[in-house]
Parts: sequence; structure tokens; C-alpha cells
Amino acid sequence: MAMTGVLRPGHVQLRVLDLEESVRFYRDVVGLVETGRDARGRVYFKAWDERDHHSLVLREAPEAGMDFLGFKVLDAATLDALEAGVQAFGIGTERLPAGDLLATGERVRFTVPTGHRIELYAHKDDVGNGQSYTNPDPWVPGLQGMAPVRFDHCLLYGTDIDATKRLFCEVLGFYLTERILMEDGKTELGIFLACSPKAHDIAFVRHAEPGKLHHVSFLLESWEQVLRSADIMSMNRVSIDIGPTRHGVTRGATIYAFDPSGNRFETFCGGYQTYPDAHPLTWTWEEVGAAVFYHDRALNERFLGVVT
Amino acid sequence: MAMTGVLRPGHVQLRVLDLEESVRFYRDVVGLVETGRDARGRVYFKAWDERDHHSLVLREAPEAGMDFLGFKVLDAATLDALEAGVQAFGIGTERLPAGDLLATGERVRFTVPTGHRIELYAHKDDVGNGQSYTNPDPWVPGLQGMAPVRFDHCLLYGTDIDATKRLFCEVLGFYLTERILMEDGKTELGIFLACSPKAHDIAFVRHAEPGKLHHVSFLLESWEQVLRSADIMSMNRVSIDIGPTRHGVTRGATIYAFDPSGNRFETFCGGYQTYPDAHPLTWTWEEVGAAVFYHDRALNERFLGVVT
Amino acid sequence: MAMTGVLRPGHVQLRVLDLEESVRFYRDVVGLVETGRDARGRVYFKAWDERDHHSLVLREAPEAGMDFLGFKVLDAATLDALEAGVQAFGIGTERLPAGDLLATGERVRFTVPTGHRIELYAHKDDVGNGQSYTNPDPWVPGLQGMAPVRFDHCLLYGTDIDATKRLFCEVLGFYLTERILMEDGKTELGIFLACSPKAHDIAFVRHAEPGKLHHVSFLLESWEQVLRSADIMSMNRVSIDIGPTRHGVTRGATIYAFDPSGNRFETFCGGYQTYPDAHPLTWTWEEVGAAVFYHDRALNERFLGVVT
Amino acid sequence: MAMTGVLRPGHVQLRVLDLEESVRFYRDVVGLVETGRDARGRVYFKAWDERDHHSLVLREAPEAGMDFLGFKVLDAATLDALEAGVQAFGIGTERLPAGDLLATGERVRFTVPTGHRIELYAHKDDVGNGQSYTNPDPWVPGLQGMAPVRFDHCLLYGTDIDATKRLFCEVLGFYLTERILMEDGKTELGIFLACSPKAHDIAFVRHAEPGKLHHVSFLLESWEQVLRSADIMSMNRVSIDIGPTRHGVTRGATIYAFDPSGNRFETFCGGYQTYPDAHPLTWTWEEVGAAVFYHDRALNERFLGVVT
Repeated sequence: MAMTGVLRPGHVQLRVLDLEESVRFYRDVVGLVETGRDARGRVYFKAWDERDHHSLVLREAPEAGMDFLGFKVLDAATLDALEAGVQAFGIGTERLPAGDLLATGERVRFTVPTGHRIELYAHKDDVGNGQSYTNPDPWVPGLQGMAPVRFDHCLLYGTDIDATKRLFCEVLGFYLTERILMEDGKTELGIFLACSPKAHDIAFVRHAEPGKLHHVSFLLESWEQVLRSADIMSMNRVSIDIGPTRHGVTRGATIYAFDPSGNRFETFCGGYQTYPDAHPLTWTWEEVGAAVFYHDRALNERFLGVVT
Repeated sequence: MAMTGVLRPGHVQLRVLDLEESVRFYRDVVGLVETGRDARGRVYFKAWDERDHHSLVLREAPEAGMDFLGFKVLDAATLDALEAGVQAFGIGTERLPAGDLLATGERVRFTVPTGHRIELYAHKDDVGNGQSYTNPDPWVPGLQGMAPVRFDHCLLYGTDIDATKRLFCEVLGFYLTERILMEDGKTELGIFLACSPKAHDIAFVRHAEPGKLHHVSFLLESWEQVLRSADIMSMNRVSIDIGPTRHGVTRGATIYAFDPSGNRFETFCGGYQTYPDAHPLTWTWEEVGAAVFYHDRALNERFLGVVT
Repeated sequence: MAMTGVLRPGHVQLRVLDLEESVRFYRDVVGLVETGRDARGRVYFKAWDERDHHSLVLREAPEAGMDFLGFKVLDAATLDALEAGVQAFGIGTERLPAGDLLATGERVRFTVPTGHRIELYAHKDDVGNGQSYTNPDPWVPGLQGMAPVRFDHCLLYGTDIDATKRLFCEVLGFYLTERILMEDGKTELGIFLACSPKAHDIAFVRHAEPGKLHHVSFLLESWEQVLRSADIMSMNRVSIDIGPTRHGVTRGATIYAFDPSGNRFETFCGGYQTYPDAHPLTWTWEEVGAAVFYHDRALNERFLGVVT
Repeated sequence: MAMTGVLRPGHVQLRVLDLEESVRFYRDVVGLVETGRDARGRVYFKAWDERDHHSLVLREAPEAGMDFLGFKVLDAATLDALEAGVQAFGIGTERLPAGDLLATGERVRFTVPTGHRIELYAHKDDVGNGQSYTNPDPWVPGLQGMAPVRFDHCLLYGTDIDATKRLFCEVLGFYLTERILMEDGKTELGIFLACSPKAHDIAFVRHAEPGKLHHVSFLLESWEQVLRSADIMSMNRVSIDIGPTRHGVTRGATIYAFDPSGNRFETFCGGYQTYPDAHPLTWTWEEVGAAVFYHDRALNERFLGVVT
């Protein structure tokens, strides 16, 4: 079997300070599709070209940040096997019942050593992408906002990235694509992990506090869409962190900005494709600037400091 | 494990009528990198951003066409397991020794029911992409020609595509992403199969003769590169079949042309990404034109008739 | 003075067979903005980024084609001077009163030797582009259809292109940018004329019948918009003539299609910029294919035969 | 006549600290074509798609900056008339003989009220763009570096921009396309002037010192080329000022960087096209950030302070 185990990042739940303001933001400015609201007041969104019921869930809370990140796995048997693997790794798991998230099957939840709550699940209802499964057009007219095609990945900041890396690589089937080293030339400051040919499905940066979110990322189809995305940010007075620019890591062409609650998000395009047989790329401490912001070759102070 | 089994189409060997003319064509016009020649006179090429030693092999012969298509698999154990699976499916296999293709490990070869010789292998030497594994730049200056980033897939024409589909899906771990139906609304005229999130890693069209090649395909990074590719074709008097245009199937933006021996090749960009949990797309007979050439919504007569 | 005399093609009036069907087409599919209807039933449109009241006027008639093409000139004094020049050239002129076209000043109309009715005018009301003249955004959200930025030029087929060329160059201040020669190596089959740094503001092809329209052309901002335009044509079952492709002449990247009445139109991007001091480019008869359709290097039969 | 008077910015002479280092920079990194060296040690360059002998001249000097900016005018009679106009405006002129700049006719030089030396000339030898005037291809293979298509404009900082504006508009035939106002809502901080449909052929910012250069600008053909340009800057450790980003003024998509002597240059694409009948755009003091850097909506401190 070629695509087994963990398929992709499937959903992320964010905390937002003002729910309706955030709904307007993610729907009208980012251009996601609202797909539902649940009894606990959470609002569900998907990118237009995703078929699963949702990929972003917003929950109103007094503090911004990420509640959890969920990965879709191939099937129920895979879910059971991966849960056993996580437990064998020494991490306790919890089962959330089907329906706890709208249109979603049973979820296995656990906290990884960086302090983030990660979930695995095998089912989410297919609600389509607005096109028929028969003779579809390549895109849907009338999209609003930046209109990314999918939720793509997260970059998470946390404490024990070494153990989290082992968990993802040894248990969950991810492989290392790139890494950024610290001044000692050995310790990993950042790691980029994939469960697919994407240059990353998840990334971690070593940080003093556990469980922090650096950004959630949405995929655009071209560099022209990145420009359009930046224009839309300006039109809507979205606070831009940096960009348009290119990352050295992954080669992605990108723009970082903040949602109304201060959660950083990225809209990006491109990046190479790779495979688990590829030699990982290493960025040295001296070139950490180029690794992150390839054009400026220097970090801005927000990159390392501002997380939610 | 997330990426297991078959990783990707790794090499294709084409027959060309005039070797040196073809070398000039694939090197200077297509913009591949020549990486070696072997004792049997074969010439090896890779796309610049591939790291394995080669992806295209040219062999001089009195008739154009494809000798074989090889898929890289995860490791030696996978190779053994897949070989056993192919044999259990009722298809005999042959082992070619390491070194039979330059820089390539042992290969398992077999003929699929459409009449094509398919190979599996677990090793090819990593020769890099012209950039260091430490602090690399995103691309290499001074590339010539169209300069695709990788060999991407083949479309093959052959007889028993039903059995070939079963072999690829049940034994080799591929999944169906799209299909084109014939007039009866049931028989599959064309099938598009993936072992990754690519919209296709291989495709087959039902055809009266076995073992035919419709096209080999090379990936470009943007629609602007497709235009540049078409310009280069015109400058070099390359015979263009059709394009620039878009496929309905896979959404790829593309141009088809012929190499000096009459082998059709494609340079394309884009196309969506998908996963094995996605419902396949179906194109009906009435819309076969839009399926293949989305803008014209009509096949040209060469599409179904001209193969090598 | 740097920009004097004739400024640009400002309006074109087309005959359409079914007015409301054509309104829907130019508004919803092409993506022009409807700006008015007059007492004679004509419907007025502008491209979103044009500020003058209209650039396209539709008139219902039993036969498709172009009624007239109007050029905006710098001011009233220029209008008088150019009128005198046309008369001195030996061509009679007619004055149409202000308001005969909505929001438009007095027009000077005359028939050029190719049989086309050409107009000059110095005033059309500025209705804006949907953005303020103070602190504008670079574009307007929510545009529909292909959403070109402006009406750009026409290609007209007619009889005496030699005399028409003299009139445009000697009287109206245009200059020759490119020309296509006939088999005799002397006679001009096609001429491309500019009154600005555009590679053409108008073009003529020698033809047995006078007064014919080959196409009206609308400018897009990028090659990605040309692809999007082709997608929209396919979604709306617009009859595409050819493209996306590139012209050898002007280098423009283009797609030709037909409106519901059979009038050919073009959406294109790019093309070089030039000046009256540039040596004109010449295309020989042997390369007329590349001149027109650079990638295919061959005319399709419709190009020379189908006009309205 | 449609294009009369001043045609375009034709050449700029820059002072550089180390001539050969600068030659390598403009040739290999920016990707201009070296076209000659004169007896005074100056080195001449053109962008590949320009046909005139040169557009950039480098002179070694102890201090960076701009020696002069020259505009090509339609013909010798125009040169005489414009010289008379400048004198009538009250500014003395000087004639430099043909050949003082290589391949260039007689030049009329004068100092405008902002303290910049401006030149007019009617002739420069046509050396072609590397393509034939008969059946040309749309571009030339094998270009190095960023490879802009032309020198486009300069932004100059100086003292009396009001009088300079009058000179350019009343005598030289330019028109105002955009302006940025100071806090008083009346005084112009910046003015953007065109002698063509370009959104600017020259621009001035009010500054305490006369005769300063903010940047020279080179035109790229697409936003993808702007990204490629930024990549090349990073690969060559070029000091980037800002970008890729978009200007609010002109809508151009841009990147600013510094040459080895500290002269700022821009590679950009896009921007709208306009005409002298268009109402100018005004940017208020509150939105000066968006006017200059549309995405960030804030000036960086270098924009107003660093000039040569």
C-alpha cells in the first residue's frame, strides 16, 4: 500500500476572542466556507476545494491559541493500530465519540511532548467541493476572499521537540524533510515533518513554553494568488507579519498575517515535493534567517517571539 | 507508516530513432540533465530537481516507444513483498541485477495485462539536484530549455486495462482518482491511478494494441513556465500536439508535443492533490472532450490514434 | 507635448442578434460592467478599470458585425484639427451631436478606405472605476466573469488597407509597429498600427470584402488570467476559436472566442511596448503561421475566413 | 500626432564606487547587456529588449548617485523646440555634442529646480534586441540574472518639486498621474509624472537636499519574474530594501534593493496604464504608508531617508 497510516492534517480548532468577528474574518476575508455550528457554539469551516465537512473549527475563548490539531488516518483499523502505537510509546490516549465534532467519527486524542493536543480520526463526512463527482469544472465561480484550496499544515512551538519528533517519525509514520540547527550545530531548533510528498505536514520549533501555535497555513494555487491574498489583507486592514516572500525551508512563497484574535496564519503556494527516501535538508544557525525568510535573510523579531 | 509501498514513477526507458539527435533534444530543448551513458549505449537523464541518478533513459532503436516504466519502492523488504504480490496475482516476475541500469539497484520486472513492462526497484544513487543539502537555494541558476522539475507520470495505451487496474490497486497500493467511461456508461475508457496525493502517477487508456505509449510527462512549476515551454517548442520547431490548455481530468495545465522520434511528451503544471479516501471523479462519454481538453471540449484525432 | 492627437480606442459598437442574450454574455461571462441603455435600445458597457462611461455598445440587428469604432482624442481643438486633416486627405466627415451616444461629446465620423466607420471624439463622462480618486485600492473585489481591465483594440478586415494605413499614419498620427507580407514579399497582408506605446491600437488585414470585423480585444492583466478566461469560456460553453496561445505579432498571450452572435473577441495579456522611433517588425509569407499563432506556427482556416 | 515630444526615459548615468564590481553586478546579477566602454572609462548597458545602444551608464566616482537622466524625444525639431521651451521657462541649457555618450546624438542638458541634471536627445543607435526585425521570436534564450526588459523610470528626491512639476508639465508635455500630500493636505510630498500611458515616467519627492536619487527602476514582465528577481538577490547577497510587495501608487508589484555602491534600484512589474485625460489620484498623509508599500501600509525608515 502506498498511502497508509496518517493521510493529512484534517482539522484544527482555534480559540478566538470574538466569535462573530472571527467568523466574518475567516469567511469573508480568508474566504473559507462555513459548514456548520454545533451545540457548544463552535463554528466549522472548510476550504472550498476540500471535500471533508470541515478543516477549521473556531471556539470563542478568553485567550487565543490552538485547542487541538487532528490528522485523518486511512481507516478504523489504522486508527486502532496508531492508538496502540502511541500508547506503546508511553503516551496516554483518550477516545472522543463520533459526533463530538460535527460530521466526524471517533477521535483518538493525546498530548505530545511539546505540549500540543493531537488527534487522529478515520472519518469525516464528504460534503463535496461545490462540483459534481461527474464531469466537474476545475473550480467554482464566485469564491470570496483569498479562497485557499485547503488547510495545509501547522507550525507549533513547544518544549520537547526531540521526543515529539520520535513520536511522529517512529509511531505515526512521518519523516523529516528539513531541520534548522541551533548555535551548537547539533540541537534542532526547528523540524519539518511530512506524512506525504508535501515538504511538510507539520513543523515544530523548540520553545520555552509548551503547546503554543506559531501559525496555521492555507494553500493557494499560485504566486499570483499570494499577491492577491496580500492585497486582500491590505484592503481589510489585516495585520501582516511578513510577506509576500519566500521561505528557504520548503521553498514555499508565502505571506504571514494575524487573525483578529492574534493567531498567526499563512497563505502560501508552492514548495517542492519530496519522498521519504530523500536526504533531509539542514539549515545552520548562521543561515537561520535565509531558512525562514529567504529574501531578507534575517528573522524579524516576531517570528521567534509572537505565538498564541 | 504514511508513505509506504510504491513511492513514485522513477524511470522510463524510451526508444528513439536517432540517439544523438534525441540527446540534444532532451538535453537542450526539454532541458534535462545528462547523467551518464552505459556500455549498451543508453543515455541517462534526470530533471534538475530530481536527486536520483536518472529518470529518463534513451535507447536507440528502429521504432519509437517505451521499453519499460519503473517505480521506486520504499525499501528492499517492500520490493520483496510487492514481487510476491505480483506473483500471487498470477503474473510472472523477473529480477534484473543491480547495475543493469546505471546507479540502480536490483529491479523486479513484469508485464501487466495492458502489455506494458513495469519495474519496481528500491535503490537509485542520490546525485543531488545541484544544491547542497545544507542551506540550499531554491533553484539552480543557468538552467537550459524547459527545465522541468521532475519526471511525473506516463499515460499508457493497452488492451486489458481492467486487469491492470486490479493489479495496481489491489497489489501495488494505487487508488483510482478519475475515470472516463465509454458509450455504454460502464466500461472504462481511461483510468487515472495514484500512489501518492498526485492526481495521477500513472494512467491507462483502453486500446486495441498492447504496450503502447501515449505520453511521458514532465512537471513544470507554473503556468508561466508552460507558456515558456510552448515558446521554446516553437523556437525549436518542436511539433506541438495541443496546448497550452487545461485537462478536465486532474485539472493540469498542459502542452503535448512530440520528440524527434514521434514519442509524445507533456510538460504541465498544476492539478489538484488528493488522497485515497477521496471519491473518484467520473467523466461520461458525452464529456470525454472536456475531460481531456477542457477548453476545446473536443478531442483532436491524434489523441486517440497516435501512440508509439 | 508627449501624448497628443489620438489617445486610444475608446468605444466600439457591435451588432448582436439577440440583445438580452448578448447583455448576459458580455456582463456575466466576459465580465464587463453595464453602464446604461439609451432610447434606441442600445446597451452600454465598460471594463471595470476604465473610467470613461463606456467602451462597448451593443445594438440588436439581424446581422452581426461592427457598426463603428471610436477613438478618443486629446481635446476639442485636436478634434477639429484631425477632422480637417481627414477632409484634406479627401475623405468626407460627419458630425454626430453630443449625447447621440450616452455621456459622450460630439463625434466626427468618417469611412476609411477599408470600409470601416471610424469616429473621433474628445469627451466621455468619467464614471470612475469603482475606486475613489483618493487612496484607492488596486482593484475592486467581487468582479464577475473574465473581468478584463479595458477594451484594447480591434482587428479589422477590409479592402484598401494601403490607403487606410496612409490615413492613420499621415493624418491620425499612428505609426506602424508590425506587418505581415503576402507571397510577393511586398504587399502587406496585415498591418499593426499604434498611437501609443502599445504594440497595436488597431490592425487591418487585406480582405475581399470591405468593413469587416475580425475581433474586438479586451486586456487581461496576466497569463494566469488568460487561463482563467479560457476556463470561464469552457464553463459557459463559449465557442473558442483558438488558445490559450501566443501571437508572434505583438507577443501577446491570447485566446480567441465567439460571442453568441458570432462576433469574434479576444482576451489577452502582455505584448511588448514600443515607440514611434522603433524599426517595424516584418513577418514574411512563409512565417505567417508563426506570426499569428506562434506556438502552432500555422493558421487555422477560421482566422482568414470567419469575420462579421 | 499621437506620440510626440518626449518619448521616454532613455538613459541614466550612475556613479559607482568600484567600476568592475558594479559591472559584474549590473551584468551578471541584474542581467543587463554590456554594450560598450568609452574613452572616459564609462561602461554602457542596455536591457535585453531595448533596441537603443544603452540605457544605463556607469561612471566610477568617490560617491554614489546619479549624474544625469536623459529622455529621448521624437526628432531633432522636437529637441530644438523643447530646448527653446526650457529656456523660455527661465532655465539655461547646454548642448553636448553627438558622440559624447557612445552611439548618441547631440544632447540638451539643463538642471531642473529639484537640482537634477536632465537631458533630452533625439538619437541613439539602434543595436537591436538580439532578434531579427523579420520573423522574430518573442524572447532571447540564455538570458542571465534578473533580465529586465527595459529601464523604466527614476524616482528623484529634491528641493523645489513644485517648479520642477511645472517644467515637466507645461514645457515637456508630461502629465500628473498621482500625488502624495503632506500633513497640511495641500503641499505635495511626491508627484508621479508621465509622458506616455505608463503610470509614471518620472517621479519626484520633496527633500531637503537637491539632486538626490531614490531609485532607478527596471521593468520585469510578470510577478513571477519579481519573485525570481528576489531569489536572485538573495542568492547573490544583494541588500534588499523591501519586497516583493505592491505599491499603492501605480499599483506596481515591486522589490527595492541596493547596488554595491548603495544606489537603490527597483525591479517591478505591472502598474496600470493611463492617459492625460485621466483624473489624477491623490494619496493623503494618513495613507502615505499604503501609497508607498500597499501591503504593509507603513513606510520603512529607509524610504524617506536613504538616497544617493
